[in-house]
Amino acid sequence: MTERLVVIGGDAGGMAGASQVRRMRPELEIVALERGLRTSYAACGIPFFVSGEIAELERLVARSPEEFRSRQNIDVRLRHEVVGIDLDRRDVEYRDLDAGRTDRLGFDQLLIGTGARPLRPPLPGIDGDNVFGVQTLDDAERLHDEARARGAQRVVVVGGGYIGLEMAEAFCHFGAEVVVLEAAPQAMRTLDADMADLVVGVMAEHGIAVRTGVEVLGFEPDGVVTAEGKEPADLVVLGMGVTPNSELAGAAGIALGVRNAIRVDDHQRTSAEGVYGAGDCCESFHRVTRQQVHVALGTVANRQARVAGVNLGGGDATFAGVLGSAVTRICTTEVARTGLTEAEASVAGFEYVVGKAKASTRAHYYPGAEPITVKLVAECGTGRLLGGQIVGGPGSGKRIDTVATAIWNEMSVDEMIDLDLAYAPPFSPVWDPVVTAARQAAKGA
Amino acid sequence: MTERLVVIGGDAGGMAGASQVRRMRPELEIVALERGLRTSYAACGIPFFVSGEIAELERLVARSPEEFRSRQNIDVRLRHEVVGIDLDRRDVEYRDLDAGRTDRLGFDQLLIGTGARPLRPPLPGIDGDNVFGVQTLDDAERLHDEARARGAQRVVVVGGGYIGLEMAEAFCHFGAEVVVLEAAPQAMRTLDADMADLVVGVMAEHGIAVRTGVEVLGFEPDGVVTAEGKEPADLVVLGMGVTPNSELAGAAGIALGVRNAIRVDDHQRTSAEGVYGAGDCCESFHRVTRQQVHVALGTVANRQARVAGVNLGGGDATFAGVLGSAVTRICTTEVARTGLTEAEASVAGFEYVVGKAKASTRAHYYPGAEPITVKLVAECGTGRLLGGQIVGGPGSGKRIDTVATAIWNEMSVDEMIDLDLAYAPPFSPVWDPVVTAARQAAKGA
Repeated sequence: MTERLVVIGGDAGGMAGASQVRRMRPELEIVALERGLRTSYAACGIPFFVSGEIAELERLVARSPEEFRSRQNIDVRLRHEVVGIDLDRRDVEYRDLDAGRTDRLGFDQLLIGTGARPLRPPLPGIDGDNVFGVQTLDDAERLHDEARARGAQRVVVVGGGYIGLEMAEAFCHFGAEVVVLEAAPQAMRTLDADMADLVVGVMAEHGIAVRTGVEVLGFEPDGVVTAEGKEPADLVVLGMGVTPNSELAGAAGIALGVRNAIRVDDHQRTSAEGVYGAGDCCESFHRVTRQQVHVALGTVANRQARVAGVNLGGGDATFAGVLGSAVTRICTTEVARTGLTEAEASVAGFEYVVGKAKASTRAHYYPGAEPITVKLVAECGTGRLLGGQIVGGPGSGKRIDTVATAIWNEMSVDEMIDLDLAYAPPFSPVWDPVVTAARQAAKGA
Repeated sequence: MTERLVVIGGDAGGMAGASQVRRMRPELEIVALERGLRTSYAACGIPFFVSGEIAELERLVARSPEEFRSRQNIDVRLRHEVVGIDLDRRDVEYRDLDAGRTDRLGFDQLLIGTGARPLRPPLPGIDGDNVFGVQTLDDAERLHDEARARGAQRVVVVGGGYIGLEMAEAFCHFGAEVVVLEAAPQAMRTLDADMADLVVGVMAEHGIAVRTGVEVLGFEPDGVVTAEGKEPADLVVLGMGVTPNSELAGAAGIALGVRNAIRVDDHQRTSAEGVYGAGDCCESFHRVTRQQVHVALGTVANRQARVAGVNLGGGDATFAGVLGSAVTRICTTEVARTGLTEAEASVAGFEYVVGKAKASTRAHYYPGAEPITVKLVAECGTGRLLGGQIVGGPGSGKRIDTVATAIWNEMSVDEMIDLDLAYAPPFSPVWDPVVTAARQAAKGA
């Protein structure tokens, strides 16, 4: 009998893994079960579809089920929802949603790529039809259509993280009045408060109000109920973070870890023999803190899927961990981070120094130069770089990759001063702002 | 008597060094002798002044003589040309060009930052008033004014390196018809031919003709004489490379090295006790080939000046070498390189593999996504990254810093696959093109 790999989940974690296995094992039977209607889509592109910047939802699909079938001989079955994993029988139980029947499918190896879903705390009215979580393209389609059908003029976003702020900007672009409500004293908590304030300031200039320390008590058809009164809204978008879809794995007896994400080792193996995990449903290893974390990002999902795929394909690949590198654009301002913030360094027990450079994105005399702020966090004594945050005009954000590569290699801020980075007036001051921040940090380290 | 540091040259090599010394030694007498009229100017900005993009030449001055005097107590003397260095007497002989007299000034330490000058091969007519080299702001001013006074409609640029192509673009922007003549079979020889071709293609689309293999025989008032006939020109700009201004040092008995650049050790010390060098007049150490090279770039000058300054100031700094990182923009296309090209890897005796990614600058579905080509060169066997080249649309160029940081840390292309770089649709595909190129190279390494 042919050996069979079953893949649960049709997005990055599952399908990028399946593709990698296929390249290494042409003879293997690969069956992918996806409960929705699409495969390998770019959830990160959803805000741009909702805003209207990207006209067609199907543009967000990187590879369709037909392409997987015809080009890679991967048997993708849509609207097939896995409802159980039996590790003893080595099969999965699935429900064919269209046919309305349940069946079983045996596997030799299993790859779990079930992703994550938006957090929906059990507040009154949260399941109302005016309250939207945004994770899948189906969600995006509903939100996009509903916003236009309702002619939404006032949108409340609950949660001031990346997704919340990106959705806020999307609705600002769409033409609505937007208010962001954040329960914590600070929005954008992946940054330190001083850097997050820069972002909130930019949003305010564009008419997006970000209110912090606001407790949401519930939802009504015409608004959000907070401790301070009702915030009227034609639509409510949830951006309160995500939680891993790990219930299937947990019910099968597969070990879960931090924040209920599926525990995986550095080969993406779960606690069960022959069962791998990849993507937003799994834990990751943080290179700086050396601890397990749950980071739900497309880059991490794809990297983990590659590693799982190589190992399932008979090779030997190791997942080298995450730094939590991320970049976004809020109203033309670019925002990026990697490694540890001050707050995270503190929690992880590091004594640290900070270097901060306020510079310009281009040579000061070159047209279009805009402010950029780079903040670096380094370990006291050794000067080892622990993290970086950047907020600034066009050309700022991807500079975080230089910081990420420096952290990856455990560079000290002192070494970074001498990095041979590229310069020309349309791109940078002669000392790149990243290096200027390193010089500042080196003084204190 | 107060100890005195004499600095020869008022641009980056000299003045950035002088500033660094001042921060560490408030009591030292510092005298800087500059033969021109300006200090610390951005020669890299010259093309943008000539084109008209930057209206005022003085915008290119980072710090004026008055600022050095009043804020840093550095005695800057303009129009003072040093004509001799006497290591036994420990003084310099200089000519006060305005007063028309010659005098001597003793030094305890000396910092040589005499820069470089455009190559002017001894061809007939090269000293004609229609033939311009571009190095100082005075050169820039003459060229800018002359172009407008003559109403230059046709400009020939001799030499297809960075400066040549940037000046070609500047005159294209100015509104002239531009032809670039390159003696070698390839323009932009800091790139490999396949990558240089992409740049030349873009220039052709913008109406700039780049002709290779054309030998220039001489210059006439109305054009350039080549082996293939006369190329008519209202103005001729030289971009044939630069040569270090090392004659003063050489005449004083200070050792010269590669391409007649002043030999310096890793502390920027010349062969003479208490005499330091920094910037375009000096050699640099190449981190990949481990050989001495002459790289005339503003970034390197500033880095060397910092090291010389720290050491002259009583500290201990080491120059960690160069990778030859550079970036430029030619007609909205960004061009960058670092480390070794294929050609350079070959000369240096490396067996290498190449990884090349043709990708897009943003997520494929995001508006404004443009092509980007990343080429990486890696050592066979070890997979160690040796160099990188990038040509692409907006957002491409500074990605070279990630490559430079990876080379700096001697990463292998295999390790680079797992780098945690930042992603969002307006910035990158989910696999950054740099990583995609690393994956390609890793297959071959």
